[in-house]
Amino acid sequence: MSYRIAYQGVPHSFSYQAANIFINKELSCFTSSSPELIGTKSFEDIIKLVKTENVALGLLPIENSLAGSIYSNYDLLEQASLSVIGELILQVHHCLIAPAKASLNSITTIYSHPKALEQCLKFLGGSLPDGSKRSPYLQMISASTSHAAAFVAEQDNLNYGAIASEEASKAYNLQVLARNIEDHEQNFTRFLVIANEPLKQDDSRTKCSITFTLNHIPGALSQVLSVLAEHQANLTKIESRPLHGHPFEYRFYVDFISDHDDRREIDTLILNVSTLKVFGWYKPNTFEKSI
Amino acid sequence: MSYRIAYQGVPHSFSYQAANIFINKELSCFTSSSPELIGTKSFEDIIKLVKTENVALGLLPIENSLAGSIYSNYDLLEQASLSVIGELILQVHHCLIAPAKASLNSITTIYSHPKALEQCLKFLGGSLPDGSKRSPYLQMISASTSHAAAFVAEQDNLNYGAIASEEASKAYNLQVLARNIEDHEQNFTRFLVIANEPLKQDDSRTKCSITFTLNHIPGALSQVLSVLAEHQANLTKIESRPLHGHPFEYRFYVDFISDHDDRREIDTLILNVSTLKVFGWYKPNTFEKSI
Repeated sequence: MSYRIAYQGVPHSFSYQAANIFINKELSCFTSSSPELIGTKSFEDIIKLVKTENVALGLLPIENSLAGSIYSNYDLLEQASLSVIGELILQVHHCLIAPAKASLNSITTIYSHPKALEQCLKFLGGSLPDGSKRSPYLQMISASTSHAAAFVAEQDNLNYGAIASEEASKAYNLQVLARNIEDHEQNFTRFLVIANEPLKQDDSRTKCSITFTLNHIPGALSQVLSVLAEHQANLTKIESRPLHGHPFEYRFYVDFISDHDDRREIDTLILNVSTLKVFGWYKPNTFEKSI
Repeated sequence: MSYRIAYQGVPHSFSYQAANIFINKELSCFTSSSPELIGTKSFEDIIKLVKTENVALGLLPIENSLAGSIYSNYDLLEQASLSVIGELILQVHHCLIAPAKASLNSITTIYSHPKALEQCLKFLGGSLPDGSKRSPYLQMISASTSHAAAFVAEQDNLNYGAIASEEASKAYNLQVLARNIEDHEQNFTRFLVIANEPLKQDDSRTKCSITFTLNHIPGALSQVLSVLAEHQANLTKIESRPLHGHPFEYRFYVDFISDHDDRREIDTLILNVSTLKVFGWYKPNTFEKSI
């Protein structure tokens, strides 16, 4: 059986790109066989495939630099008791893509996913990348950026464009009329790579993701931070999440990096927490730009 | 001129409901006249209206219990130098609504916004509220839950339903076939109420939202938390956000509640931060369920 990796979406989506980058960059550590990518309809399906269906890895988006943490995916991860074995940070770029005979002046209607449309409001409102102005585009909603690209390719209409990735333009034989049309260039999505079992100890696996609950703030939180500081752990994330219906009780998400010899013990040293779960130790990842 | 409040969306959306709840509950403190609600296309437009167009208040969603903080709205708030003068927490409930002559068995196609469809996957997959099973529904995408309700009302087709709020069912004269069909009942959205000027000091305004940047963790973060602890401030939120391109530099979002006499001085006592911005002092708000 081939080595299988599950992601949410369809081919040429941003998740699909992230999965391919992870395969090219990191997967030689895990397998020498050529992996198979499986697109799922929901994040729940990724968890299910990894847990029960002999799918080796899953790719779960966990936070975005504009939209914040995706708590619902933290919940899935926690409930499933899966391990985090890697991370990948992808910079999201949007392009206006269209049939070969179209031009910036011929496009009147743009198809995309609502999220992508929302991220390109300045461009849609008439601000072109060269600073010039034109009439606002008519916006039409598609189920995904890939669906939008497929529809525009199929219609082959001078007036139709799609907002999607450059990869989608290649896959559907469309031209790129404008690149990087997103309002905010700092648009990054961080994915966690999940598996059934944690990784074995290894010097490169210096990053750890944990979650814990506390009843009292700030005393208990300071104690946790002190333990991490004593072990020279560098925090890379701290986030509180209110437990609704339980005033002043919180769940925390903390990531830290430590290359000290005793780093695997840090998670056992944290006292005064109500509950503690270690998601996993893994190699910190530099970010990749979407292509 | 009437007292005007800006929200993002269209009438009968969840933001519109939140604005109405705030008007009924809190607005008597600010005005005795009947306010006018202004729906905008984007969050940027809310900021613009409050800053320049004599719109008194704006309602900005800032975090959701499943989707996390909305950093892009924190960015808007910071860039605009507006003040937070209130908060409102709304529990989001979805309903299946349909024309009067339809029934649960006659519906085959469901229209809604992709986000609402995503939040009701179990129901869409065939799990009815009474535990029974049926065939999965065909899902069709609309620009918003309100647009879906309007379309279903207009078509008046036995086979069409919309996922939207109960309020939308009333507005478009549709019946509610199933209530609370969301997968996760803990679905809350927190809105900040923003204005040009901060509120005057008042014993009820015990909650404060701040943002700051730090170069060093954990030492500097512990110092900030210590200052808050010394003044008996209860943290209700702490969140780090990586500054991309600046490894190990972070922006923090902290909310705290303090009823001590010197509470207005806390924000000036916090040292060792690179930058500090106080969004405002306001009355902490109990949450409201969407109707």
